[in-house]
This record gives sequence, C-alpha cells and structure tokens, in this order.
Amino acid sequence: MPKNKQILLDNRPQGEASASNFKLVESDTPALTEGEVLVRHHFLSLDPYMRGRMNDAKSYAAPQPVGQVMQGGTVGEVVESRSPKFAVGDKVVGMGGWQEYSVVAADQPGALRKVDTAHVPLSHYLGAVGMPGVTAWYGLVKIIQPKEGQTIVVSAASGAVGSALGTLAKARGCRAVGIAGGPDKCRYVTEELGFDACVDYKQHADASSLSKALKEACPDGIHGYFENVGGMVMDAVMLRMNAFGRIALCGMIAGYDGKPIPMAYPQLILTNRLTVEGFIVSEHMEVWPQALQELGTLVGSGKLRPRESVAQGLASAPEAFLGMLKGRNFGKQLVKVS
Amino acid sequence: MPKNKQILLDNRPQGEASASNFKLVESDTPALTEGEVLVRHHFLSLDPYMRGRMNDAKSYAAPQPVGQVMQGGTVGEVVESRSPKFAVGDKVVGMGGWQEYSVVAADQPGALRKVDTAHVPLSHYLGAVGMPGVTAWYGLVKIIQPKEGQTIVVSAASGAVGSALGTLAKARGCRAVGIAGGPDKCRYVTEELGFDACVDYKQHADASSLSKALKEACPDGIHGYFENVGGMVMDAVMLRMNAFGRIALCGMIAGYDGKPIPMAYPQLILTNRLTVEGFIVSEHMEVWPQALQELGTLVGSGKLRPRESVAQGLASAPEAFLGMLKGRNFGKQLVKVS
Repeated sequence: MPKNKQILLDNRPQGEASASNFKLVESDTPALTEGEVLVRHHFLSLDPYMRGRMNDAKSYAAPQPVGQVMQGGTVGEVVESRSPKFAVGDKVVGMGGWQEYSVVAADQPGALRKVDTAHVPLSHYLGAVGMPGVTAWYGLVKIIQPKEGQTIVVSAASGAVGSALGTLAKARGCRAVGIAGGPDKCRYVTEELGFDACVDYKQHADASSLSKALKEACPDGIHGYFENVGGMVMDAVMLRMNAFGRIALCGMIAGYDGKPIPMAYPQLILTNRLTVEGFIVSEHMEVWPQALQELGTLVGSGKLRPRESVAQGLASAPEAFLGMLKGRNFGKQLVKVS
Repeated sequence: MPKNKQILLDNRPQGEASASNFKLVESDTPALTEGEVLVRHHFLSLDPYMRGRMNDAKSYAAPQPVGQVMQGGTVGEVVESRSPKFAVGDKVVGMGGWQEYSVVAADQPGALRKVDTAHVPLSHYLGAVGMPGVTAWYGLVKIIQPKEGQTIVVSAASGAVGSALGTLAKARGCRAVGIAGGPDKCRYVTEELGFDACVDYKQHADASSLSKALKEACPDGIHGYFENVGGMVMDAVMLRMNAFGRIALCGMIAGYDGKPIPMAYPQLILTNRLTVEGFIVSEHMEVWPQALQELGTLVGSGKLRPRESVAQGLASAPEAFLGMLKGRNFGKQLVKVS
C-alpha cells in the first residue's frame, strides 16, 4: 500500500481564507474491494468555486466538510484495478480531491472517465477540455446565444474559463474582448488567444474609468458578457451593455470572502432590458459531450492554446489556491501531484 | 375652438423631482386638418416611468423634451372628427399627454384605440386593462413563466401593475404574496384582491428584517418575483428566492431620482441560479391583444377589482405625480381632467 498525502479543510475561514485553514496529513491507501480502482493523481485542479464551499453557507453545493479531504477535480492514471472497466495505465479524469491517491468505485456514474491523451495533454482535461471549458461553452452558447458580428466580453480572460470563452466566441464570428489584470496577461489574451482586444482592469481605479476603456475596445457596445469576477469589473461592463444584452454569471470571485459586493447599477438591467442568468455547469450534464467535442477539437488543432500555472507538489496546493483567488495565477491553476 | 390647459416640463429635476419642474399654460386648440380628431380627455394616467423620462439620461425611451407637454396615456371621447374612423362620442384610449384636449392623426397606427365601456369602466383602460395590466401579464406569463402551486411575489402590490399581477397569478393556481406599504394597502391586497398574504415593508427597517417576514409569508420559498420598486425590497426578496427562481424587472422606482440604488447581494443570482430580466412592455406589442382579453375578462367578471386614486383637475397632476413617486397613491393614480 503506498502512503497517501492528503490536504484537509481544518477549519473554516473567518473572512479571507488563509493557509491555516488547511492541514496536511499522511495515511495509508486502503486495500481495494471488488469494483474499485486506485488512481495515482498527476494533476489537481484549483478552482474559484472551492472558496465558496469552504464557507458554511447555503449555496448550490453542500459545504466542504471540515476535517475531510478538500474536494476537487483530478487527472491521473490507474495503478491498481479491481474493476473490469479500467486497466492499470489508463489515464482518467475524476474528482479525486487534494491528495496523491484516490480509491474510486468505478461503477458509480460519472466518477471516473477514461481519456485519450494522443491529441490533448492530460492536464487540459482539468481546464479547456474539462469543467472550465464546458462552463465557458454553456454560458456562451446557451445563455449569451451570440450572433455573428456581436461583441462578447469576458472577465478573467486569461484564465481557464475566459480563454475558452474567447476562442469559442471567435469561432462564431464574434468580436471577443477580454478583461485581465496586467500587461502580460493582456498580451497573452490578444496575441496567443486571438482576442480582438483586452482591457487591463488594474489600470483603472473605478468602474467609470474602466467603462471608458471598454467603450474604446467595444465600439459597437457589448452584446454579451460572461462574468467571472463581479464587483467593479461587472459594474463597468454593465455601463456598456447594449439593449437586450445578455449576461452569463458563473463566478463572483470578488464576493467569496463573505463580504457581499453590491451591484452598483441594477437599474441598467431595466433600462437596457438585460437578461442576467446565473448557472452551475454541473447541473447541465446534457451539454458536456457536445461541448467537450468542440473544445477538444479547438485544442487539438491549436486554435485554443490554454496556459497553465503549475505548482509543484501537493503541499503547495493551499498557497497556490490562495494566490489564484488574488489573481496571481496565469491561466489554469494546477498542482503537479506526482 | 375650446381653450386647452396643458402642463409642460419646464426644467429637469436636479435630484428629487418637484412641482417647480412643471408649468401650467393655456392655449387654443388648433383647427383640425383632414384625418385628425379632437379628443377631450376624461382621465390622465400617472406612471412611475414618467419620472425616468424627466431626466436627460440614456434610457429605453427618448427623454421628455423640455418646454413641451408632458407625455402620458389618456382616455377620453372624440368631440370633433375629420376622420371616417372615429365618430363624435367614441370613447378612446391614446397618448394624449398632460392636457385637457389633444389633436390626433387618426391614421397613425396605435395612436388612438376605440374601447367598449359596457363592461369595463373607461378609466380602467389606463390601468388593469391597459399598459399596467399588460405589463403584469408579460412579466408573469413570458418571464416568470409560473407553474401551478408556485409562490409568486410582487412589490407595490396594491398598485395598478401589482394588483393585476396577483390576480393573474391566482388564476394560474399560484400562491400570490404581495409587498405593500401600510396596513390599509395590505388589507386591500389580501381581502379585496385575494392575495394569499401581504407583507408591510414599512414595518421593517432593513432587508434582513423584511426577509424574515417574507419567509413566514412564503413557506415554500419564492419561485417568481415581479419587481416594481428596487432597493431594499428587492434585496429582501432575493434572499428568499428558490433555486432557478425568475425575476421580472419592470420598475425601479427607488432609483429614479438619479441616485443609483445598488443591489446588495448580486451573488445570489449565481448561488441560486436566478434569471433576472428587464423589459419594457411597449416593445412587446404582439402580446397586447391576448393580455387585454384576459385582463378585460377578469375585470368584467369582478375577479380583478382595481383601485384608483383620482386627483381632480389637470392642475393637480404634478402634486399627484410627486405623491405617487413617494407611494402616497392607493391603486392606479389618475387625474380626472374633465
């Protein structure tokens, strides 16, 4: 039995999350029973939604239990199998959590999915060809419903969701405009991802100033907006939305620390007849196959070149996670577990 | 030629609107040219949207021009006609504005509509069987899309839109819960309009307190909300929305004075996967016939008993309008012009 390192939620954050909320422990991996497989994780996915689950608040998902392994998406390989469905060496995607190994009941629907790594690197199944990519796909295709020639804006544009969003919008003949923090991220968004423009929100002290920069980047106004951030960035975009504009709302990272961040100009929803819709991609499993197929093709053909920030070793996960919440990552934040 | 009294927008409000923004003038009614009719107004409609148009701000409608007659819906009768479509004595609905008479080009589509006053009193064509009624119908049927047994909440429940909303919701087998200001209005909402409950927002100092009262009135949570007010009332309702709840947003009276009123908890749109949609009923003319038919039947059969606040004489319009913006009216605010 290999030793297994795990990171638990030790206690819930009071306000801002910190490293002291987590605890690293070591244990034996249990012996497999019939139908189970042992997966050695290669990469762990760090995602903003995890911060929300650390609170003990009513939300769409049950809170992360205290004293248990932090939940999260993982990719890895099967190292031991008592299931006819998986063989040793299979590359798999699952929800293995913040640990080096996981034991998975292979019959449980959706618990483990075998993936092809010939055209798509394994780690991308946690990003562009995984949950973040499908999140972008659902928000764009099902909520924003873009038409050719329209201007689509996304915040956190260099991240896993934002980069997929822009590429998907470009594939539909739209003008894609990103919002990101800092010149390096903005350069990546326009030069490598092919967005038509990118606005650096760090250059702007308030929504009014950011809104003026958006006016230049969006001469025809904004038809659709994919919200990853909330707060000042969302206010600035709302000031530039066209009549009948549509906003897909999937992350409000600015509000995860318990302090609600108000929306400054809700009357714009009325005066511009906007539709604002919140969604959780895991509630729309029916779109995953179609979305993953398009995303896999975009990555395989080089049209979508996702960037990754990789922290080394499981023990680095808390620090990498806290940095991501402050926007210190560049692209999809991963932890190389083994 | 009869003399015509008119109320003009004399200057735009700086902050709160006041009587000094308006000016009463007198002029001759012009002679009719071919195709025109002269309408003597019986009632003038006062509506919250007019406050928005008094500002010189980008909005869904062009601002009310300064120095011109205040625009607004009217009902009256034809007193002179040079159109084969209208005879003297016809009862008509139009947009005659804040004046005693209007000259209307009868051929202009939608300018003037002849109505039947055998089953529906003329004034109700400005309320329950007019624009406010259709506003309620569109928001409920097209945006909230209620299902039998669901709980539907409406703010300003004793008003022209709110009263129609509740009756339409009851007709669809829903639980209708109103929010109104003061015990008299709440009593009318439950006893005369047949809502299942009504919460008096004036008894609550903040959204948290109002939200607790809503919890009692809505034991199954809130599935749909029709927003007439904005601000604290909307925040309180959002705290009680169920997952996948739908909000139709047609008025944010709390924000018309130029000071934007923030939405306190926009993250609830995400965590509860809400849809919030703003709309303007005049952009959905295709639903009017169907909506007016249902509303006319509800009024004719006594199921919808709209209440009216009637100010006497054109000169009383500014004061009545300002009072309505502060919630001093009880039911649809009208001015009896002649």
